[in-house]
Amino acid sequence: MEVDHGRPRPGEDALATEEPLEIRVSWAGLSRPVAVTMRTPGADFELAVGFLFSEGVIHRREQVRRVSYCVGPALGDAQHYDAQQYNVVNVELAAGHPSDGRGPAGPDLSRLERHFSMTSACGVCGKASLEGLRLRGYQKLCPEDGPFLRPEVLVSLPTKLRAAQRLFDATGGLHACGLFSAEGDLLAVREDVGRHNAMDKLTGWALLAGRTPLDGHVVVASGRSSFELVQKALACGACALCSVSAPSSLAVDLARELGLTLVGFLRGDRFKVYAGAERLALG
Amino acid sequence: MEVDHGRPRPGEDALATEEPLEIRVSWAGLSRPVAVTMRTPGADFELAVGFLFSEGVIHRREQVRRVSYCVGPALGDAQHYDAQQYNVVNVELAAGHPSDGRGPAGPDLSRLERHFSMTSACGVCGKASLEGLRLRGYQKLCPEDGPFLRPEVLVSLPTKLRAAQRLFDATGGLHACGLFSAEGDLLAVREDVGRHNAMDKLTGWALLAGRTPLDGHVVVASGRSSFELVQKALACGACALCSVSAPSSLAVDLARELGLTLVGFLRGDRFKVYAGAERLALG
Repeated sequence: MEVDHGRPRPGEDALATEEPLEIRVSWAGLSRPVAVTMRTPGADFELAVGFLFSEGVIHRREQVRRVSYCVGPALGDAQHYDAQQYNVVNVELAAGHPSDGRGPAGPDLSRLERHFSMTSACGVCGKASLEGLRLRGYQKLCPEDGPFLRPEVLVSLPTKLRAAQRLFDATGGLHACGLFSAEGDLLAVREDVGRHNAMDKLTGWALLAGRTPLDGHVVVASGRSSFELVQKALACGACALCSVSAPSSLAVDLARELGLTLVGFLRGDRFKVYAGAERLALG
Repeated sequence: MEVDHGRPRPGEDALATEEPLEIRVSWAGLSRPVAVTMRTPGADFELAVGFLFSEGVIHRREQVRRVSYCVGPALGDAQHYDAQQYNVVNVELAAGHPSDGRGPAGPDLSRLERHFSMTSACGVCGKASLEGLRLRGYQKLCPEDGPFLRPEVLVSLPTKLRAAQRLFDATGGLHACGLFSAEGDLLAVREDVGRHNAMDKLTGWALLAGRTPLDGHVVVASGRSSFELVQKALACGACALCSVSAPSSLAVDLARELGLTLVGFLRGDRFKVYAGAERLALG
């Protein structure tokens, strides 16, 4: 129902769907739930794979043997069997995992427990957060030959992203992440009630399509650029992250440290550059 | 640096600060880290207490003996001692905890591990998520005597919230949650780079000020209303949650199930009502 100047006007609204998704990892006959996220259904396999990629559990497409919804006996006698059969995704890892070369002992899931163990490794502060990524193997992006991102291309991207969003106009409640070439061609767009989920879906798409690392590509996000969003953009190898909104201090620190071009307030013919201005062909 | 029509214009921008905060709980000489969240420093004690309250670890102000930053030997020989000394907050619980009446065995922290154990309890779907809250003791809000929320008051709240935000205009990157009386008086406003953190800070303020449950009060959030935000509004006892943006499907389901008035798209003289319209004095 809409209320206009105090008067009710009946009507129905489309709502962005939000449902929990449990992500499981299986290898060598073992299966383990690793995360539950509130997400908008759709592109669930990409979300699961992108999440595991961003978290450092998988690094290459070949490490993923199979992605599937968990249905049937694996869910047991759960009361809400029908409702939940598309809310549990299992990512089966190929034999030969883990990536750390220690043999078939299973993937390294310890990072997924960082909510409980972060301090023991490296303290709790922004600087330690940056160092934590270095310990995970994040390296500074290789510099390209000269500036190749044109401002007139960048300012065209938000409009292209909105045009490609199927759901935004109907519900007003979805975030989007779009992947563009340096020339401004849209390669993929993914949506979700959660900003990080939209980015994970995009990353999962790129990984499953064999496109990672995304050298020379630009990610455009509909929301604010946080530390975590910059980290995910770096994980998939994009060279720039643009947003119509503001970045946080730690997002800027991380982008500067690892050489990502970070653009904010991308609106109309203007934007602000917080890091990596050397990639921009400015007049 | 700002870029306008392709031309650079030097300048400095204020950035919203984002830093990790570790929340610890201690009781009977034991201490345990329970969560790390990326937050904007400020109102850290309220954030820690509000988080524990929303998660069901504490229920009353009397259960909190002391809240403090962890400094000194407790942090060990961490490399970044100086930087992190205001990034770890310890909430010391009073003797006699837990709330489940089983004696001094310690608080129930199991719910904080839901990211790993959610499915074992009640399945993975929206309906199960609602039932999970019922199991945690959430009850339907008591109906008040007739409609008492006036539309002309509601539409005035976003402007009051923005006026009270100290940082928004400077950085453009902060979410805010404001607490209002039914008459539209602003009681408190809290900001953060994360929507949920802003709500936890507000809840913690209310709890520490002895104001919970917040019968008959209205929470206004600057962002989208998600399942989790509705849950936090219910936890502190507010009767309405208003947002300038859209709610998710599960947020609406939860608000209807537990009797919260849920308002979205609160802009100008108009808004949409998704649940609890019986509290509104409509013309």
